[in-house]
Amino acid sequence: MKRTLLAASVALLATSAVADDHQKPNIIYVIGDGMGFEFISAYRYAMSNLETKDIAETQFDHYLTGAATTYPEDDTWVTDSAAGATALAAGEKSYNGAIGMDNDKTALKTVMEYAKDSGYMTGSVSTSQVNHATPASFFSHHPSRYEYNEIADLMAQQYIKDEASYDVLLGGGQQYFIRDDKNWVELLQQHGLQVIQDMQMLDQVEQAPVMGLFAPKGLPHAIDEGKDSLARMTSTALRLLSAEDKPFALMIEGSQIDWCGHANDIACAVHEMDSLNKTLEVVNEFIAENPNTLFVMTADHSTGGLTLGRDGEYAWYSDRVMAIESSIATMRGELLEMDADQWADYVADKVNSELTQDYIDELALAAEQQGEAREEALHNALVYITGDITGTGWTGSGHTAVDVPVFATGPNADQFRGYMDNTALGKRLIDIVR
Amino acid sequence: MKRTLLAASVALLATSAVADDHQKPNIIYVIGDGMGFEFISAYRYAMSNLETKDIAETQFDHYLTGAATTYPEDDTWVTDSAAGATALAAGEKSYNGAIGMDNDKTALKTVMEYAKDSGYMTGSVSTSQVNHATPASFFSHHPSRYEYNEIADLMAQQYIKDEASYDVLLGGGQQYFIRDDKNWVELLQQHGLQVIQDMQMLDQVEQAPVMGLFAPKGLPHAIDEGKDSLARMTSTALRLLSAEDKPFALMIEGSQIDWCGHANDIACAVHEMDSLNKTLEVVNEFIAENPNTLFVMTADHSTGGLTLGRDGEYAWYSDRVMAIESSIATMRGELLEMDADQWADYVADKVNSELTQDYIDELALAAEQQGEAREEALHNALVYITGDITGTGWTGSGHTAVDVPVFATGPNADQFRGYMDNTALGKRLIDIVR
Repeated sequence: MKRTLLAASVALLATSAVADDHQKPNIIYVIGDGMGFEFISAYRYAMSNLETKDIAETQFDHYLTGAATTYPEDDTWVTDSAAGATALAAGEKSYNGAIGMDNDKTALKTVMEYAKDSGYMTGSVSTSQVNHATPASFFSHHPSRYEYNEIADLMAQQYIKDEASYDVLLGGGQQYFIRDDKNWVELLQQHGLQVIQDMQMLDQVEQAPVMGLFAPKGLPHAIDEGKDSLARMTSTALRLLSAEDKPFALMIEGSQIDWCGHANDIACAVHEMDSLNKTLEVVNEFIAENPNTLFVMTADHSTGGLTLGRDGEYAWYSDRVMAIESSIATMRGELLEMDADQWADYVADKVNSELTQDYIDELALAAEQQGEAREEALHNALVYITGDITGTGWTGSGHTAVDVPVFATGPNADQFRGYMDNTALGKRLIDIVR
Repeated sequence: MKRTLLAASVALLATSAVADDHQKPNIIYVIGDGMGFEFISAYRYAMSNLETKDIAETQFDHYLTGAATTYPEDDTWVTDSAAGATALAAGEKSYNGAIGMDNDKTALKTVMEYAKDSGYMTGSVSTSQVNHATPASFFSHHPSRYEYNEIADLMAQQYIKDEASYDVLLGGGQQYFIRDDKNWVELLQQHGLQVIQDMQMLDQVEQAPVMGLFAPKGLPHAIDEGKDSLARMTSTALRLLSAEDKPFALMIEGSQIDWCGHANDIACAVHEMDSLNKTLEVVNEFIAENPNTLFVMTADHSTGGLTLGRDGEYAWYSDRVMAIESSIATMRGELLEMDADQWADYVADKVNSELTQDYIDELALAAEQQGEAREEALHNALVYITGDITGTGWTGSGHTAVDVPVFATGPNADQFRGYMDNTALGKRLIDIVR
């Protein structure tokens, strides 16, 4: 009798395990590309009042739970975004450049693929092209992140072969999916994937699956004209993914924190953080109404060697950061279109600060150059001027090996506390969705 | 009858509240001066194997619980060690330079003073002088950290007036307590405070109170000859403070992580981290035997704008950091004593690396200088050489405004999770010891 009862219980447990698929938590997995602790602090203070010390309450600060390593399985401690995203997506270290592949170039099953197997809806939102290192590492497998066309082909072919591991894929990347040699749009639409190229269309999409390609490559920087794009795409993704009676897993990438870091552009970085913060407000509203949602956020690495304060001066001028009106990339582009004798006035206007003779000399040096040398010297002059005005330090254009913050809330959030390896995030999420 | 029983219970509770003083947890409060996240990562990787990726398990990584702000109540986001220590000791923000004082220069009661009132034994251990900003902010009150003699006088006078808030005070600082115009040693000993000046004496001290002054100012750098001094002092402090039937509060400062940061000396910094790690091993052994001990660790700020990787190269050469045999300060001192034509050989030997022509040229430039200019140029050459060899970036000789890590274990450790203001650490510890 006891045996029978036990067997019945086991059967019941097994049934309930299957039925539990509907009870599995939604996953919202946010990656601030390049978002080291310095960017968290910089954003908080940029939004705060330096004089009164009235400190902004950011979405980031609410959910901090720990920190993660970033190093790859390579001959260096410094990861790139591909190895970083592969660790976060598949729970395994790999070499710099690897898209969802192990060190021996075998495909690694990602949390999105496991989630699909478990009946999840899946998707990603990014301000980079959808086939850029971070989103690509969640949905495809390729030995090199730089083969953008091939990765786009892989992601398109998944739909055509009915093997897609995504239902919603929003970001940039038109030039990779719509090429002279290959235009995927018509074929994808024939196979049931809506493809939209105008952000105005987001509200009109009634159901997944959908691919949104809103720029040739990445979307415009938040500081220039992309302020709300990440939050808008996220809002649509959450609406579409939560419409069906299934759990979902959504990866959201604040892609261009990293790009501004590479450019050593502090105002650009802070505005990207603000764009991500706005996105987190959308996420929070969703979570408030859908508490069976696990929110996990981290970065793949920190970029640029950012420091708040430099050259021995105990100051970081957050107000001056917020007074800058354009990204360095935009300023440089516009400067290259005008006569060099207008440069100083233009820059003073854009950074809302008088230029010292030192700054004017830097611009004059750039004006003496031609072609690429002029572009580079102008970039360096703008990095120097904005860094010096604001007291912002940078140690280079690459990444650093420092640990990055981890944030979590919701069911199983306790698994993301304290110090952890970056692969632990991928592994634990895989365990949760499996 | 009920009333009587209730009254008896209340009386019992009151008695047990008093008796509970013995049940209050010991506090071990560790401050890594200047120990931003970068230093945690740097130490871990310096102790690990770059090729095999065999990652060292450091004491730091076990206990990470969150991160804290560092900004002072001043016209800047960047704190100094005095305002930082005051926030950590007294739970209130103040201006840069303040030692246990509020912005209006009124004394702030510190966790050590509250602990004393509650019947705790108290003490501190540091590799700086005992009257340096961090220890001084726990045990004294002065408007300016730079008045070392006056702060020493205050700390000595506490004993003579029978108002001492410390039972054990170990570190450096002979030149402030033993001056031509004032020698405190005899007077302090007359009032019952043992004063020792030789670290060999530590084992022979049988009971508190004791002051140990083991160097004129700070102790030697760990990389040079101070490898075990912090762990040895900590071991003695724990023995003396735990000998009586009272709880204790001990502040332990890894003081010179900051000093190596100011000097932009990566090998020096990593060895200071190792010295603190060894100290944490001593702390851990104590905690294992005395579980009613709350361990909290943080930093007051990060120093130097350290980054692991620089100049766009995706590398940080931890093995080359560990191959460096001397601090920059020691190398510079020894170089200044020898002929400049011996410099290159000496440096190559100390950093265990061949010097590029570029490095030799930097040294030659310094050799052309005289006096202080020579010292400075030599320092800069050594920063350049060690930084370039190891791939270590620095943005200056000062502090930065980035958040710092928080670590905790033991009773009430949950209060130190997530993101918090640096004053919250002081406030919460005060609430625990009161």
